[in-house]
Amino acid sequence: MSEVTAAPAKIVTACIVVIGNEILSGRTKDANIVYLAAELGKLGVRVMECRVIPDTETTIVTTINEVRTRFDYVFTTGGIGPTHDDITADSIAKAFGVGISEHPEAVARMSRHYGDPALFTPARRRMARIPHGAALVDNPISVAPGFQMENVFTFAGIPTIVESMFQSMKHRLGGGDPVLSRTVRTNLPEGVIAEPLGALQKRFNDLDIGSYPGFRAGKVSVSLVLRGTDDGQLALATGELMDTIRRMNGEAEELVQ
Amino acid sequence: MSEVTAAPAKIVTACIVVIGNEILSGRTKDANIVYLAAELGKLGVRVMECRVIPDTETTIVTTINEVRTRFDYVFTTGGIGPTHDDITADSIAKAFGVGISEHPEAVARMSRHYGDPALFTPARRRMARIPHGAALVDNPISVAPGFQMENVFTFAGIPTIVESMFQSMKHRLGGGDPVLSRTVRTNLPEGVIAEPLGALQKRFNDLDIGSYPGFRAGKVSVSLVLRGTDDGQLALATGELMDTIRRMNGEAEELVQ
Repeated sequence: MSEVTAAPAKIVTACIVVIGNEILSGRTKDANIVYLAAELGKLGVRVMECRVIPDTETTIVTTINEVRTRFDYVFTTGGIGPTHDDITADSIAKAFGVGISEHPEAVARMSRHYGDPALFTPARRRMARIPHGAALVDNPISVAPGFQMENVFTFAGIPTIVESMFQSMKHRLGGGDPVLSRTVRTNLPEGVIAEPLGALQKRFNDLDIGSYPGFRAGKVSVSLVLRGTDDGQLALATGELMDTIRRMNGEAEELVQ
Repeated sequence: MSEVTAAPAKIVTACIVVIGNEILSGRTKDANIVYLAAELGKLGVRVMECRVIPDTETTIVTTINEVRTRFDYVFTTGGIGPTHDDITADSIAKAFGVGISEHPEAVARMSRHYGDPALFTPARRRMARIPHGAALVDNPISVAPGFQMENVFTFAGIPTIVESMFQSMKHRLGGGDPVLSRTVRTNLPEGVIAEPLGALQKRFNDLDIGSYPGFRAGKVSVSLVLRGTDDGQLALATGELMDTIRRMNGEAEELVQ
């Protein structure tokens, strides 16, 4: 059978850069990649790569300067708190070759938040330092802002703060065509379904068809995920896949998501 | 006070490359980075960077060829199953400029495992294809092996299989000095403890001192983590830190790990 093609999709890409020794040491399990990737997907922004890097200036500068030219958007998490190991803001300024100093609006928000000037310590004032030319990203939870420097968005590391920062700025993002997905679950193992699945992927070249094996109630259960921007094409491919599985005497169930 | 130095540590580095569209789409939360990072740390191998990349040949080849020269060890997870989207083995072969074909020992293990030749389908035979020159990595769970190509170790993506593969091969790794850590928990917020903590980091330049804010029973709780290879230096710095916190009328409790 011949290849089924769709109208060319508008693709907008992103890279997530997780900054923090605590992830690299295995002390902390990152939770921000899965959140940002799913939220960006809804807006039609496709995460094409993630990096986890240490709190080291040269690594941050090199990484940011590489990925900001390769992807439409870059999102960083971590390293904008008040302690000595929080060097993300300074490193972003260095990557862009700009200065960094206290941002009047950030200082104003934080003074209001702390009230008593004695509580607005020099360490906390560090969190008001923003690279020159950057726009603030609101922090509805703990006030100290993130920032946007051209196509690079810098967020905190704590997951609840990342979520609130993302929700406060997502309207600034110009998305591509949203990526839609359908999932078919089957009891046929991967080694049995692999060949017809590969043939289906060849015909539906614009879709991204993935196979994820697992177990359910002690039995093999494979999730077949079809992703693409064209709803009609997705429906067609999903229908063909379920027919194929049933002809092979397998169970095929589409998951409602 | 003057800087406290330790004997130079032997440092062995690693990079983890997670290969899979399902992580980038936010469908699946990676569990392998935290496992491998913690296990490697115990062996004195420091994970310096992680990447999450798509099932795309050019990206896999470019990434592997970049990181295998920059780090002592590289560990990849994902993309060695039987379906069309499993292209890691072929991409590793391409990165090293070698061929790839069925490995006799891998075929033998898998035929024994499947028993009935009809069950050892062409799709499953794909999992016996190993880049030329690579050594097998045992898979105690589902038999289809991973492999080691020079300093690059290629594992499956399913966490239980990654764990069993790592445990079966970890004796091949030459580690550096193990990284030891001590954690002090305090009720002083980061903005208050930041200055003495920064001063401590300056004095103990060979240690890596991190600050991780959180909440416990509704109150601020900051974990201060000191990491290094010299036990005596760690004990000295931990003692000084706890004294400092108590002089500031804070609570300091060392966590037993």
